[in-house]
Amino acid sequence: MSDLFRPGDHRAGELFTDAAFTAAMVAVESAWAGVDLHVPDLDLASATESGANPVIPLVRALKEANPGVDVHTGLTSQDVLDTALVLLLREAVTVVRENLDRAGAALGSLDDAHGRTPAIARTLTQWALPITLSERFTAWGTGLAEAAHDLAALVFPVQAGGPVGTLADRRGLAARLGLADVASWHTNRRPVTRAGDALVAACDACGHVARDVLTLSRPELGEVSEGSGGGSSSMPHKANPALSTLVRSTALVAPHLGAALHSAAADQVDERADGAWHAEWDTLRLLARRTVVATAQTADLLAGLRVHPERIAANLAAAEQIRGGTA
Amino acid sequence: MSDLFRPGDHRAGELFTDAAFTAAMVAVESAWAGVDLHVPDLDLASATESGANPVIPLVRALKEANPGVDVHTGLTSQDVLDTALVLLLREAVTVVRENLDRAGAALGSLDDAHGRTPAIARTLTQWALPITLSERFTAWGTGLAEAAHDLAALVFPVQAGGPVGTLADRRGLAARLGLADVASWHTNRRPVTRAGDALVAACDACGHVARDVLTLSRPELGEVSEGSGGGSSSMPHKANPALSTLVRSTALVAPHLGAALHSAAADQVDERADGAWHAEWDTLRLLARRTVVATAQTADLLAGLRVHPERIAANLAAAEQIRGGTA
Amino acid sequence: MSDLFRPGDHRAGELFTDAAFTAAMVAVESAWAGVDLHVPDLDLASATESGANPVIPLVRALKEANPGVDVHTGLTSQDVLDTALVLLLREAVTVVRENLDRAGAALGSLDDAHGRTPAIARTLTQWALPITLSERFTAWGTGLAEAAHDLAALVFPVQAGGPVGTLADRRGLAARLGLADVASWHTNRRPVTRAGDALVAACDACGHVARDVLTLSRPELGEVSEGSGGGSSSMPHKANPALSTLVRSTALVAPHLGAALHSAAADQVDERADGAWHAEWDTLRLLARRTVVATAQTADLLAGLRVHPERIAANLAAAEQIRGGTA
Amino acid sequence: MSDLFRPGDHRAGELFTDAAFTAAMVAVESAWAGVDLHVPDLDLASATESGANPVIPLVRALKEANPGVDVHTGLTSQDVLDTALVLLLREAVTVVRENLDRAGAALGSLDDAHGRTPAIARTLTQWALPITLSERFTAWGTGLAEAAHDLAALVFPVQAGGPVGTLADRRGLAARLGLADVASWHTNRRPVTRAGDALVAACDACGHVARDVLTLSRPELGEVSEGSGGGSSSMPHKANPALSTLVRSTALVAPHLGAALHSAAADQVDERADGAWHAEWDTLRLLARRTVVATAQTADLLAGLRVHPERIAANLAAAEQIRGGTA
Repeated sequence: MSDLFRPGDHRAGELFTDAAFTAAMVAVESAWAGVDLHVPDLDLASATESGANPVIPLVRALKEANPGVDVHTGLTSQDVLDTALVLLLREAVTVVRENLDRAGAALGSLDDAHGRTPAIARTLTQWALPITLSERFTAWGTGLAEAAHDLAALVFPVQAGGPVGTLADRRGLAARLGLADVASWHTNRRPVTRAGDALVAACDACGHVARDVLTLSRPELGEVSEGSGGGSSSMPHKANPALSTLVRSTALVAPHLGAALHSAAADQVDERADGAWHAEWDTLRLLARRTVVATAQTADLLAGLRVHPERIAANLAAAEQIRGGTA
Repeated sequence: MSDLFRPGDHRAGELFTDAAFTAAMVAVESAWAGVDLHVPDLDLASATESGANPVIPLVRALKEANPGVDVHTGLTSQDVLDTALVLLLREAVTVVRENLDRAGAALGSLDDAHGRTPAIARTLTQWALPITLSERFTAWGTGLAEAAHDLAALVFPVQAGGPVGTLADRRGLAARLGLADVASWHTNRRPVTRAGDALVAACDACGHVARDVLTLSRPELGEVSEGSGGGSSSMPHKANPALSTLVRSTALVAPHLGAALHSAAADQVDERADGAWHAEWDTLRLLARRTVVATAQTADLLAGLRVHPERIAANLAAAEQIRGGTA
Repeated sequence: MSDLFRPGDHRAGELFTDAAFTAAMVAVESAWAGVDLHVPDLDLASATESGANPVIPLVRALKEANPGVDVHTGLTSQDVLDTALVLLLREAVTVVRENLDRAGAALGSLDDAHGRTPAIARTLTQWALPITLSERFTAWGTGLAEAAHDLAALVFPVQAGGPVGTLADRRGLAARLGLADVASWHTNRRPVTRAGDALVAACDACGHVARDVLTLSRPELGEVSEGSGGGSSSMPHKANPALSTLVRSTALVAPHLGAALHSAAADQVDERADGAWHAEWDTLRLLARRTVVATAQTADLLAGLRVHPERIAANLAAAEQIRGGTA
Repeated sequence: MSDLFRPGDHRAGELFTDAAFTAAMVAVESAWAGVDLHVPDLDLASATESGANPVIPLVRALKEANPGVDVHTGLTSQDVLDTALVLLLREAVTVVRENLDRAGAALGSLDDAHGRTPAIARTLTQWALPITLSERFTAWGTGLAEAAHDLAALVFPVQAGGPVGTLADRRGLAARLGLADVASWHTNRRPVTRAGDALVAACDACGHVARDVLTLSRPELGEVSEGSGGGSSSMPHKANPALSTLVRSTALVAPHLGAALHSAAADQVDERADGAWHAEWDTLRLLARRTVVATAQTADLLAGLRVHPERIAANLAAAEQIRGGTA
């Protein structure tokens, strides 16, 4: 977590933290062992590098702390780590979907209150023809709804190939964790890129809203303003569109994170890749947290958005005058 | 088309060429006008820049060449251009899916002939445990099949918002062009990014096959070789894995093209964006053509792949000896 | 070339076309052979795929057309292709630098005419404190000048490792082509990524200008307008900021193209890479052409930019009133 | 820091942590105020979002804790934050350069010990002609040296435009912090992208080494091995090339992070951008830390690399036999 480098990051809470990751891996091993494993004090950080993944020191510690229990037998590091990542991902996607629902509800309220207000449309920054605000809200809402739809369609698969994995084992593990029972996807990373694509699409949709709000809240346009504008360290009178600004900053970064997941997917080789697998972990973590934060910020942004009908009417009138003048 | 900068580009034929684009735009205008428009000699190239899109000079020329016909009334440039792009995209996706089917069939033949052959698995480049070739073919095939599945699920929507578009108009246009009748998506670009994501996923899946073939065809491994290896300008005895090399080159580039589409989607503003829309056209063209070529090359690669059981057996034996030695 | 998918592409003329590429490769072979080679009618396109590069069929054709001449001996495909690409790149960079110079001169004229005009600064879209237009022009100019500086610092190296290349050979080839004589860089691609980074930086700087112009030419701000705004297919009265829009579309795409070159550089292996080298060619072509076009469009944009002092003054007055009111 | 998601991350220590960021911002404010400011207990995290940056709550706290001191007057949030980021960046670049020097020295030792060993070159994965190991080491070393050169050429500029900043103020601030005194670069982000490009180039160069080591340490090639291979959770006999794997994972991601900085640079607008500035902070943090780790891992990798002359000779002999057979 870093609210200094990513303002608002605290909104993502414990999602995809080291502690959550460790807990998820322990959950996978427990489900596999069929018992609740005793979890020792763990300091995995310093030991992850030598084996290039955190599962190796975790398994060692779990075995020591649970004598007599058959820990990890039949699984590989990738089985545990991938399944744990899916558990983290599922949790994050759930929150993203809730945020998108909340944003959609806020849009509904805006539409009830202001949807029939006529406004001037703009194309390539210039005045075009009149629309109603409802049309703009619909454009925002469709993007948010499509993102939610794609996230709802995601399947969260167990990973359990193992060096000696059997179907019976895998099915049981999937059932105990509530995951989909699918063939192992050690080197077929579409489950990861599909999730990444859907998260990026959610950021895209939020970015669209943010860029419109930033534009429409320019003082010369004045059609909307954020409910509680941010301040300035040098000019206390300013009310900055802080949430839109932060959402837009995520929308600029997210496509690159999604692309990194595809670069990793395209670089699969052998029965476990030599770096491409490892490239996913932190990228997925960052993309998921940023999407959680951006969708939450967008929901707040829409819930607090102030619409200024008088300015909308004035801009429309000015535009109509020009159009009339050229007719 | 440029086979010099992108060897194999001719495989994409006329897909997404300027001529195909012009024809698609004319098809949209004809379907809208309800008559087959007479198409004059067109040189749109020099006139596209002043209006930032090719529709403006096209409409002017069509009106001149079809006096008495109600051309373009009620449509916008974006309606025509987006719908034409969707027509081009649908055609390209059809070819990509055929190529993936062909690749899958070739994989099936490989599996029939060699699937039960035991081989040594490799993780992080090192020998792991024995598998059968069928497991490797399945890993390839699942990726190709998932890409095909996502492409098959794509919806190809008409774009017909227009400044005065009505539902009745749009439904008719969609029907005449065989496209889906959906609400206008002028600033909601998920239809574009979803197609882009699926095309990139197809390149990822092909890249996975290519990287495995490149690895396994190293002379020290020797487990497979391309059916007709490419030559060398200085060393005639060399048989280069040319198709795999070219597929891999596309797999390296495709994620970046897909990301550019998302960057554009995240930058939507107003009722038509000020550059983000325009950024899609050439990016989609390039991504579609590259995917068509890469999937065709992968199908050929798999159809011609030579499997060398004796080298596979030798590597497996060497690996088993090491494992035995450490046990 | 494709003006339909990339409006304005004709501005890049013959730079990085297939014909220019072929001519450059022939120039390299001629310089190596020490004679002006006779160039037969060539159709390299269909033959490039089998060897994964166009040099193999080119050399075959040149040998046939120049009996008795020692063609290509001691060079590799990569020597010829890389050196030819550098020749194309040098030509494109020259044009980009001319365009940037032209843009800088136009900025100078704007500064002479309007630099002392006070205007309201904006941060996070909101009114901040007064500046002069000169400060804004300086912000634009610094970006353009830094891009020009980085382009001027580029070194254009010969590539001549060859399977049996000697220093004497390489030095002569470099001298004959006017290129820098450096050690072979077959798998060290910093010469390519450094050029790519500088081209992207030029697009970034142009994108900054374009986004400001797009913002300031919104009718509600009205502080500037493009000299000759583009039209609309449905609303003839509109004057769209067409050049800014197109520049911005390139600025959205260019970072992704630059990143693809880095992905290729990071994937080097062996003494010639298995796809990463091939991934550069078309990416560099597209990035170079787009940068040529975007810098030319930016120069035109600045040369024709209309500044509207009365609107600037009105916005400043409105901002001052607000500030006064809160003081 | 997260060693679980990015194994080896602890190598970057306190670089670019929240604590380091806060300390750097306090250092900037202290240098500006001309006194060592008393630093209160700070919890900036929860307060950064409302103003979209951490400077606003920091300044508030510093003013309260330092009554009578003229804190921040004349600076803006961006002045403080940008200058603090440059301080963090300079520190990280120093470590990266030390790591690259260490890697270069390790390469020198390898060259002394094994440089004259003949080996078979490989192009497009296939055997080509003999080289010496020195040629391969030189290829690696040139990439690392060019990256170091570009990093050494970076200028670390103060940011001090301020709403009322004067040249005298800025020069003093730069001097006190040991930074370059340059004109403000609030919306000209080449100083950031140039650093980003150089960091990515360092990752590219390390990635090249890693991919070669991964290839050459395949058991079928066996020409090199990592000094202390990582283990496996399920197969204790395995010795994985853990460092190369992790370096390669960073090399896959870094180009995307560098591109995100360019996307932000291209999206500058007004006198402070509405999201593009904010997009840089975490991206630069992550890129810097990953580069520190990857270069340190590469230095260790090279320092511990084991070269196996007998396998090199055997591969060369096998290659020569084939070549002989075709001659």
